[in-house]
Amino acid sequence: MTTPVLLLLGPSGAFEVADVDAPQVSVLDLGVTRGDGVFESIGVVEGRAQAMEPHLARLTKSAAMLDLPAPDLDAWRTAVLRAVELADDTAPELLVKLIYTRGIEGDPAAAPTGWVHLFEAGGFDAERTAGIDVITLDRGYRSDVAQTSPWLLQGAKTLSYAVNKAALREAARRGAHDVIFVSTDGVVLEGPNSTVIALIDGVYVTTPSDLGVLEGTTQGAFFDSVAASGSTVEYRAMTVDELRGASAVWLASSGRQIAPVRSLDGVAVASDAGLTADGVATLLAR
Amino acid sequence: MTTPVLLLLGPSGAFEVADVDAPQVSVLDLGVTRGDGVFESIGVVEGRAQAMEPHLARLTKSAAMLDLPAPDLDAWRTAVLRAVELADDTAPELLVKLIYTRGIEGDPAAAPTGWVHLFEAGGFDAERTAGIDVITLDRGYRSDVAQTSPWLLQGAKTLSYAVNKAALREAARRGAHDVIFVSTDGVVLEGPNSTVIALIDGVYVTTPSDLGVLEGTTQGAFFDSVAASGSTVEYRAMTVDELRGASAVWLASSGRQIAPVRSLDGVAVASDAGLTADGVATLLAR
Repeated sequence: MTTPVLLLLGPSGAFEVADVDAPQVSVLDLGVTRGDGVFESIGVVEGRAQAMEPHLARLTKSAAMLDLPAPDLDAWRTAVLRAVELADDTAPELLVKLIYTRGIEGDPAAAPTGWVHLFEAGGFDAERTAGIDVITLDRGYRSDVAQTSPWLLQGAKTLSYAVNKAALREAARRGAHDVIFVSTDGVVLEGPNSTVIALIDGVYVTTPSDLGVLEGTTQGAFFDSVAASGSTVEYRAMTVDELRGASAVWLASSGRQIAPVRSLDGVAVASDAGLTADGVATLLAR
Repeated sequence: MTTPVLLLLGPSGAFEVADVDAPQVSVLDLGVTRGDGVFESIGVVEGRAQAMEPHLARLTKSAAMLDLPAPDLDAWRTAVLRAVELADDTAPELLVKLIYTRGIEGDPAAAPTGWVHLFEAGGFDAERTAGIDVITLDRGYRSDVAQTSPWLLQGAKTLSYAVNKAALREAARRGAHDVIFVSTDGVVLEGPNSTVIALIDGVYVTTPSDLGVLEGTTQGAFFDSVAASGSTVEYRAMTVDELRGASAVWLASSGRQIAPVRSLDGVAVASDAGLTADGVATLLAR
C-alpha cells in the first residue's frame, strides 16, 4: 500500500480500502451538489494522529448542526488509525481528511457518504519561521449569529467552503498569504482554515466558540501546553486593534501547527521567534 | 438510452455519456471537498429546455465571481440539448442540472470538472395550486455586501449550499415549506432556491440583483410575459411588511415555475388563483 490512502465508509459502518485515483463519488451525492456535509483534517506527525478526540468531537458537533446522523466515532477512529498504518510514506508530516456527506439525493435509504483520505503534507517550514502576511476581511455576519440564526451554520465545519476559498484568493490578490475574518461588530473571528491566537499583555487569547468560530484543535493543544508552563490563557472577543498591538499573533491549524503573523493589512506586527519555535516544536512532538 | 441522462465534460471540452449509477467524481475534486464550484438547474417542459440563455449567462457570471475559467457555452448548450434528445422519459417535466467545479485539488493542469445531469422532475401541482407556507429567515448579511464584500459570493450560484439546505430544514421544523431570506437591514432577498415576486399596488416587484440575489431566470420570463400584457414590473428593495400587504406573493424557480405563498410566518397572505394559473400556464408553454 502506497500513500495516499483512501478508505470508504461502507454500508455496514466499516471502512474499505479504495483507489484514490478512480472516481468514487456519485454525481447525485449532496456533498458535491450542495456542499451538504462536514469534514475534519487531522495532522499526522511521525506516524501519530494529532488531537484525534477533539477532531472527532468537532465532527460530531458539525454533523449535529447539519442534522446529519451522528457519526460512528469508533468506526472513524479505527479508519484513521488504519490509514496511518497503511501509509508507507516516509515524509514526517501527513494529513488525514475525514469527509461525511448527506449521501445520495432522493435515496429513501439516505445513508451518509463517508471517507478517510490520507496524503502527504508538509512544506510548512517557511510559514512557521518567516511568518505570513495576513489581511482582515469582513465575514459579513454579526458576532452573535451562531446564537440568533443557527441555520447560518457558523461554528460548523461544512463542505460549503466556497467563501473561505474566495477569501484566500482575495488575500492572494492583495499579495498576502492568509485571512482573518472580522464580524460586522468588529470582533476578530478566525481564519478560513485556522484559529487566531494573540499574546496580549502576557496573556494568550483566542476567540470563544460561541461567537460562531470553530473550536481550534491545534489552538487547544497550544493552550494546554502554555498553560502547563504557567502562562495564562483566555477565551474572549478581541478587536483588530488589539491584534495590531499584540506581542505576537499566530494562526493555528492542523497542517501548519502555528504560523506567526508578520503583517496585518500591510502593517508589520510584533512577533517572537523563540515562542514560535518552542510552540511548533511542542506541537509537532505531541 | 433511458432517463436519467449523465454527460461528463471531457478534457477536449466535449461531453460524453456516462453511467449515472456509477461513481464519477474524485474524492480530490474541490467541488466535493470545498463546495468550490457553481451550478444551474434548467427546466425541460415537453422536450423544451427553458430559459437556456439566461441560465448559461448566470453560469458564466457565477464562474467569474469564483475566478473559475469561463465555461465554453457552446459546449454546455450542446450538452443540454443532447441530454434532452437522449431522454426517453415521457414525463412532461424534467430538470437538467449543470455542475462546474474547480476540479482536482493540487493538479497542476487544474482543469475544471463539469457534468450535465437530466432527470425527471414534477409533482409540483399541489404547490402551484394550493400554495406554500413560507417563513422569513435572517440571512445574516446586509443588503449591500455584494458591493462591499465580493468574497462572500452573494449573487453567485455556488455548490456551497449547506446554509440554504439548513434554512429549508428550519422551515420544515416550523411546519412550513419554504423560506424567504431577509437582510439584516430589513430587505427581502430571495428563497434558498427561488426568486420572490410580489404584486404590490398593481405592480409586479422583485429584488434587484445588486442586492446580492441571483437574477431569476423564471422570474425574468414571468416579468417578460406580464409586461407584454401591459402590466408594470419593477426591480426594487421590498420589506417584509410590503409582502404581508401585497395582493399576491410567489416564489419562482425552474422546477415549480411560480408557487403562490399562502402564508408568511404563519399569517395568511393574499393570493390570486387566476393570476397564478395564468402565470403557470404561460411559463409551462414557453
